[in-house]
Amino acid sequence: LEKAMKGRQPTDLMLRCTVLDAEGNVKTISGQFRRTDLCSEHRLNPRDLRKIDSRIPNLVPTILVRKEAILVNILHIRALVKADAVVLFDTYGSADSRLHSVFLYHLEHNLKAKTAGLPYEFRALDSILLSVLSALEAEMVFIRNLIGGLLAELEDDIDHDRFKRLLHYSRRLASFSNRAKLVSFIISLWVVDTLVTDPKIPVQEALEEVLEQDEDLAAMYLSDKNNGITRKPSDHEDLEVLLESFSKQVEEIVNEAENIQSNVQSTQEIVELLLDSNRNALLALDLKISILTMGIGIGTLVAGVFGMNLKSHMEENEYAFLVMSGLSMLVAFAFSYTGLRRLARIRKVGLATNNKKTNARYRWLAHYWRSKRDGWP
Amino acid sequence: LEKAMKGRQPTDLMLRCTVLDAEGNVKTISGQFRRTDLCSEHRLNPRDLRKIDSRIPNLVPTILVRKEAILVNILHIRALVKADAVVLFDTYGSADSRLHSVFLYHLEHNLKAKTAGLPYEFRALDSILLSVLSALEAEMVFIRNLIGGLLAELEDDIDHDRFKRLLHYSRRLASFSNRAKLVSFIISLWVVDTLVTDPKIPVQEALEEVLEQDEDLAAMYLSDKNNGITRKPSDHEDLEVLLESFSKQVEEIVNEAENIQSNVQSTQEIVELLLDSNRNALLALDLKISILTMGIGIGTLVAGVFGMNLKSHMEENEYAFLVMSGLSMLVAFAFSYTGLRRLARIRKVGLATNNKKTNARYRWLAHYWRSKRDGWP
Amino acid sequence: LEKAMKGRQPTDLMLRCTVLDAEGNVKTISGQFRRTDLCSEHRLNPRDLRKIDSRIPNLVPTILVRKEAILVNILHIRALVKADAVVLFDTYGSADSRLHSVFLYHLEHNLKAKTAGLPYEFRALDSILLSVLSALEAEMVFIRNLIGGLLAELEDDIDHDRFKRLLHYSRRLASFSNRAKLVSFIISLWVVDTLVTDPKIPVQEALEEVLEQDEDLAAMYLSDKNNGITRKPSDHEDLEVLLESFSKQVEEIVNEAENIQSNVQSTQEIVELLLDSNRNALLALDLKISILTMGIGIGTLVAGVFGMNLKSHMEENEYAFLVMSGLSMLVAFAFSYTGLRRLARIRKVGLATNNKKTNARYRWLAHYWRSKRDGWP
Amino acid sequence: LEKAMKGRQPTDLMLRCTVLDAEGNVKTISGQFRRTDLCSEHRLNPRDLRKIDSRIPNLVPTILVRKEAILVNILHIRALVKADAVVLFDTYGSADSRLHSVFLYHLEHNLKAKTAGLPYEFRALDSILLSVLSALEAEMVFIRNLIGGLLAELEDDIDHDRFKRLLHYSRRLASFSNRAKLVSFIISLWVVDTLVTDPKIPVQEALEEVLEQDEDLAAMYLSDKNNGITRKPSDHEDLEVLLESFSKQVEEIVNEAENIQSNVQSTQEIVELLLDSNRNALLALDLKISILTMGIGIGTLVAGVFGMNLKSHMEENEYAFLVMSGLSMLVAFAFSYTGLRRLARIRKVGLATNNKKTNARYRWLAHYWRSKRDGWP
Amino acid sequence: LEKAMKGRQPTDLMLRCTVLDAEGNVKTISGQFRRTDLCSEHRLNPRDLRKIDSRIPNLVPTILVRKEAILVNILHIRALVKADAVVLFDTYGSADSRLHSVFLYHLEHNLKAKTAGLPYEFRALDSILLSVLSALEAEMVFIRNLIGGLLAELEDDIDHDRFKRLLHYSRRLASFSNRAKLVSFIISLWVVDTLVTDPKIPVQEALEEVLEQDEDLAAMYLSDKNNGITRKPSDHEDLEVLLESFSKQVEEIVNEAENIQSNVQSTQEIVELLLDSNRNALLALDLKISILTMGIGIGTLVAGVFGMNLKSHMEENEYAFLVMSGLSMLVAFAFSYTGLRRLARIRKVGLATNNKKTNARYRWLAHYWRSKRDGWP
Repeated sequence: LEKAMKGRQPTDLMLRCTVLDAEGNVKTISGQFRRTDLCSEHRLNPRDLRKIDSRIPNLVPTILVRKEAILVNILHIRALVKADAVVLFDTYGSADSRLHSVFLYHLEHNLKAKTAGLPYEFRALDSILLSVLSALEAEMVFIRNLIGGLLAELEDDIDHDRFKRLLHYSRRLASFSNRAKLVSFIISLWVVDTLVTDPKIPVQEALEEVLEQDEDLAAMYLSDKNNGITRKPSDHEDLEVLLESFSKQVEEIVNEAENIQSNVQSTQEIVELLLDSNRNALLALDLKISILTMGIGIGTLVAGVFGMNLKSHMEENEYAFLVMSGLSMLVAFAFSYTGLRRLARIRKVGLATNNKKTNARYRWLAHYWRSKRDGWP
Repeated sequence: LEKAMKGRQPTDLMLRCTVLDAEGNVKTISGQFRRTDLCSEHRLNPRDLRKIDSRIPNLVPTILVRKEAILVNILHIRALVKADAVVLFDTYGSADSRLHSVFLYHLEHNLKAKTAGLPYEFRALDSILLSVLSALEAEMVFIRNLIGGLLAELEDDIDHDRFKRLLHYSRRLASFSNRAKLVSFIISLWVVDTLVTDPKIPVQEALEEVLEQDEDLAAMYLSDKNNGITRKPSDHEDLEVLLESFSKQVEEIVNEAENIQSNVQSTQEIVELLLDSNRNALLALDLKISILTMGIGIGTLVAGVFGMNLKSHMEENEYAFLVMSGLSMLVAFAFSYTGLRRLARIRKVGLATNNKKTNARYRWLAHYWRSKRDGWP
Repeated sequence: LEKAMKGRQPTDLMLRCTVLDAEGNVKTISGQFRRTDLCSEHRLNPRDLRKIDSRIPNLVPTILVRKEAILVNILHIRALVKADAVVLFDTYGSADSRLHSVFLYHLEHNLKAKTAGLPYEFRALDSILLSVLSALEAEMVFIRNLIGGLLAELEDDIDHDRFKRLLHYSRRLASFSNRAKLVSFIISLWVVDTLVTDPKIPVQEALEEVLEQDEDLAAMYLSDKNNGITRKPSDHEDLEVLLESFSKQVEEIVNEAENIQSNVQSTQEIVELLLDSNRNALLALDLKISILTMGIGIGTLVAGVFGMNLKSHMEENEYAFLVMSGLSMLVAFAFSYTGLRRLARIRKVGLATNNKKTNARYRWLAHYWRSKRDGWP
Repeated sequence: LEKAMKGRQPTDLMLRCTVLDAEGNVKTISGQFRRTDLCSEHRLNPRDLRKIDSRIPNLVPTILVRKEAILVNILHIRALVKADAVVLFDTYGSADSRLHSVFLYHLEHNLKAKTAGLPYEFRALDSILLSVLSALEAEMVFIRNLIGGLLAELEDDIDHDRFKRLLHYSRRLASFSNRAKLVSFIISLWVVDTLVTDPKIPVQEALEEVLEQDEDLAAMYLSDKNNGITRKPSDHEDLEVLLESFSKQVEEIVNEAENIQSNVQSTQEIVELLLDSNRNALLALDLKISILTMGIGIGTLVAGVFGMNLKSHMEENEYAFLVMSGLSMLVAFAFSYTGLRRLARIRKVGLATNNKKTNARYRWLAHYWRSKRDGWP
Repeated sequence: LEKAMKGRQPTDLMLRCTVLDAEGNVKTISGQFRRTDLCSEHRLNPRDLRKIDSRIPNLVPTILVRKEAILVNILHIRALVKADAVVLFDTYGSADSRLHSVFLYHLEHNLKAKTAGLPYEFRALDSILLSVLSALEAEMVFIRNLIGGLLAELEDDIDHDRFKRLLHYSRRLASFSNRAKLVSFIISLWVVDTLVTDPKIPVQEALEEVLEQDEDLAAMYLSDKNNGITRKPSDHEDLEVLLESFSKQVEEIVNEAENIQSNVQSTQEIVELLLDSNRNALLALDLKISILTMGIGIGTLVAGVFGMNLKSHMEENEYAFLVMSGLSMLVAFAFSYTGLRRLARIRKVGLATNNKKTNARYRWLAHYWRSKRDGWP
């Protein structure tokens, strides 16, 4: 515990970052920066910086708007977006990741392309969200294929090993679904009012909830703040359309993950029923065998009795052998037949109640009632 | 991933659309249009256009109100409704669909009929929602029949194959229920206040939530906007009644889907209990057979013992055979009887606690308590 | 689908209604009215009329307040309440229903009694809600008795048929619970603020949510509207007390239905455990029998070996018979005993962990931890 | 139904009440009062009176604030609290209840003690809530002991009877939990804002939600209303602290009840797994016995074959007996050994997937993926 | 009950506290204080004091803001924070706890360090929350290791004892998760608006919800209140950042606990499927053995029949022995083969429906339907 408490003190002061300048060029790749320098340079609270510190693993994503910067910590991306620079913090062990390099390539390209009409910080945000979305989609496709393949295999044969793989896959699916939901939630926080997109409506400014939202959104226009342009709170259509679009796509992914989960769930339930039903079939066959064995046992008993070295007074009877053989077979057959008939009666299972007596009362009530209910929807 | 990121660039620029003019006549059927032309012609953001692009499959439905158009993407319908035109985007592979042609026929008819008192864009919306509703209802009826039939079959006999079909049907039901809920949600977003329908109440304009809703709804009156008529935000009774009615009907469908789901669920639970109970019956019968077999085995042992080629000193006894035969039968019977009685004791299962000793304490407490609780509801 | 779409056109224009006049007298019983006449006479939108059209079955109840009428569609009652008339629409096939005649009798009586201090439309509403409540209560009592009886039967004996009946009853319970919840919801929508009952507090008018509610409630005072009396929005204590009382009682019914459902649920779970436990007992007995059978089989083998027509060189030994008989019995006993002891060890199942080794680590950790946690609640 | 409808008419007009006067002395014990007298004396609406009528059993508790009285109906207590009197309505069959007499004693004592600084009506309310809390706590302790004891017994041995008791206890727990939740809900309705307790903050009066709450709370100061003192709405610290404290304690009880429920739930799940696992162990032992029996059977068959009264041409062979005996034993052993090895292979169940082939693809994918995910949290 | 009611009277008036003064020095360690003295000294309501009384165990945590003090009762910490002193109440039996001494050390250190810029009361709060967080994290890590280890063991082998440990661990996990959620909830109450952190926005003061929050937060600046500084309600960035940070970290812990719970849940489900599937495999092997046993029994019967001391007229036949031996083997083989083939047919279980007839109708419908649905998402 002491360690845990002290672990919170800033012991190791260096962070690895990749920095892109206002032109979209990569200035530094995985350079070492001192924590305190970063704070003072970007006017950040050390507490804020800790939130995007890559060495502290965390699941819950964050988007924070500070005076001169937007801090983003979603999935594999931990970035500080300013009006004229983007600082990407290296996440633990991901230096060689292909995902990261694609992201960096796209970000560079996007920052250089000024024709899109969006300010610098939004182009960066756009790349970040796009990378997050790609990562989620790629994992979604991967998991969907895994589980889809497994369910298809279960169509053919239900066996041990597939259950074990199902367990591994559902754990992964649950973890993915959880992550996607957290991302969806954090983005949707910024798109409360996805329907009001016409900035012409003045009365909107009186709506408090929306207003608050507006301010937060407006606070994101870092470039304008830098240039001393004061935006009207409601004037942020670009950003809203950007966020709304991502929000919708993440929502689709969450929706699909939930569909797969419910699919797996119902498959499990039915597989259990199938196994149960199969077990009953096995038991029934076992029972048949037992019954036949019992019949045979009876025949053997009869034969054994006459095999005793005792006087049965039939030793010399010419037909005794045939009669006794026939008798033992007959007894075996009779017992087996009785057993099998009884089994057949038990095996027949349906949902229809066929107990005449106990039902009589229910039926009467039901009839009495139906007459009333008929008038109902 | 690279592909995914690039796939987002507008590579294929043509879209297939069906266009209806202000008179309700079909101008073009499945004509090819360039994406950029559509955007500039209808003053759309390319991002918005992507939402109704038929080649991107999506589950979450959308209704977007833009300056000159309403964009609708629900189930099989992807349309752009303007004050004087309707553009229907062909959904993937559905050119020959009967559903689509019925919809087109109805839409044409509805747009031509000007007597309804509704403006052009609402008549189009009415047809669209009606088609959505019909599609949902048709699938609802189809699934209800499938599952109803299966449950009826289960009444007769519970077997393997029916479980497998149950799995397929419940997957489909879950998927349908999910789709219906999403549609219900998107429509209900537009009908927040279904109860306030009297537009005479002025104080209403102070209610913020409703006001916001009003503006959105008012923004839908594209014809009036075009003709320069400014509507009072609260003056949209027509539209609200239209939406309210559809919302209610979709809600009924969702409600029914949930009912069927809970029905399937409780059937599964009871089927499991039935299979369990049936298994116990099978086991009990098996046990009876085992007990009898054991009895027979004992008889055989006795017989076998006297069948040994050893001197039992009873070889010459006249009655030894009968005595021993009788004895072996008796032993067989005695063992079987003991076994069967024990079985009968185990088989009797009820929920009533019949353990006298452990219960004593509970009863005392219960009695003590009941005296107090009696005064309670 | 075409049919479905056309089915929406008003093809059959006649409705069967029962009309009561301002004095509470029945003017017409099950008379035929044309749809259009009804609309024009009561100034209704045809779309509204469809909502209380008895031929369209619907589960979701509705209370709509229009300019001159209140439309009610709850369970078996579909009515149009005006300030001086009540129109009851015949529900499908319910002409002879006893429920309906009791309701009509009560309504007539209630409308004639002017002493209650309530205006005409509220006396009608009171009768309607009372009838709905009676219907819900009667079905609640009926289902409670059905299920209570079944659970009591399960106390005695758990068998097949009772599961099937349980399935039927729980389906009915679920359907009832769903209906009751929908009714409860629609009524509670009108009683949002059950706590504010002192109409003297002026500041209340500033409360928006409540205000909106007030207007809706005030809009229900049809008589006053007719007589040109404008009520202050907050002046509707009578109506609120009326609704609040019904809301509370419906809530009790919903609560009880949920209690029964959870009761059924936990019974099912325990029954499953009981069946499982019973199965284990059966298996254990089966195992005992198997072990004994095996023992007997060994004896038989020994006897059989000496029964072979081969020279065992003991044929003439005087005591060989007794020795071998005893030996075969002993072997049988020894094997059986070993088997039964092993069974007894397996049969003993408790929740206490008794694995000493694997637990050691856990215990140490638990001990370490407990010392810390002791300081906690 | 008729009866139900008529049952609502006030047929029996007498109520049994205990009345305490302004000094806290008991004026009447279980005296008979006419309903109408009570209404007129305390200026109550008959509908309100019905809510605390002890003969109508109801689960949902109520606290109603009327002009001159507070009506309380929680669990065993049905009371009418005024500024100078408390009327306790006898609940059905509880005249002799110990709980009730303790409550009465405490109430009397509390009303007489004027030093507490609280007005008369709050001292009464305090006693009432305290009695409710004591009742809940006592039942909580009782149920916790019952279930704790049962779970401890399950630690030792899982058997039939304990499941049945578990069912009874969980039903009771569910019912108790439901009751406690309803009480918690009704009290928490009065303590919406437990955090704002500093009445010095004037701006608070602008907060609508809180304001409304304030009025309701202020309306409870019956004494002040009687004395013509108008309280500022926000000036009700005493009452709030009183309610807040009870609310917190009821919440603790609800929380504990839920903990016990989840505890019972997870115990049930594990018990099911244990029974399943035990069943497999039983089956495996059964299988061992079966395999041995089969082996023995084969020996017996060999012996039987040589026991036939047919010429085997080995009758005179000196060693045939030993060879054949040995052979039969060997065959029995060989078959048994094969069977047991096969069983051992099946018995070994772990969650690790050990299917090399099907896994290859998965592993590759997993590896490919892990490399990416490594960079993630 | 009487006891319970009286137990609420302040019978034992002494409390053990540790007091830190304004310089952060420990003034008293575990000193005895009289309850009334504490109340008067810190101007507390006795009711408030009871909430942090260490002898009453309680799960629901509390943070109360009073005029001159903040009362904190979370997990193992019960403290009274003032602008110039911190009073820590000893929790039951925790005097020797290591957790507590680490906390005390950290608190002392933190209070002495004035450079942090935070006022005295917030530095105390910071230490308290940090200690709570450390305790939660330590227990989280402990439980995660326990359960992770157990799940890893289950990978190897599923056995009895591990289920029992699983039960104990999940109970502990559930209890921990519950505690963490309550802590998360109480902290999040103070951080409603985690997004609005720019105190420059004046319009914010109009936002009611936030405003209320602001006042509560501002009320926490005890030092300023003491020094007569009136803070603007919205000026509390320090505190908010502090709370927000803890809130986020507790949320992570709750999230992880839920992940582990869902992991355990899905493992249990799959283990059940595995046990079921294993049971079927056992049954199938049992069945094979039974079938072979039956075959052997038939052979034995044939041999027994010819072993009877009756005339079969084949006694002298030279080849009868071989023929009969062969015949008995053949019959045994034939029966066994038939049985095993039948078993193989039953054993094959897949999810694919292979019933051609019943499916025909479904397929047609599905085909009919798919054609329509193709046009859908």
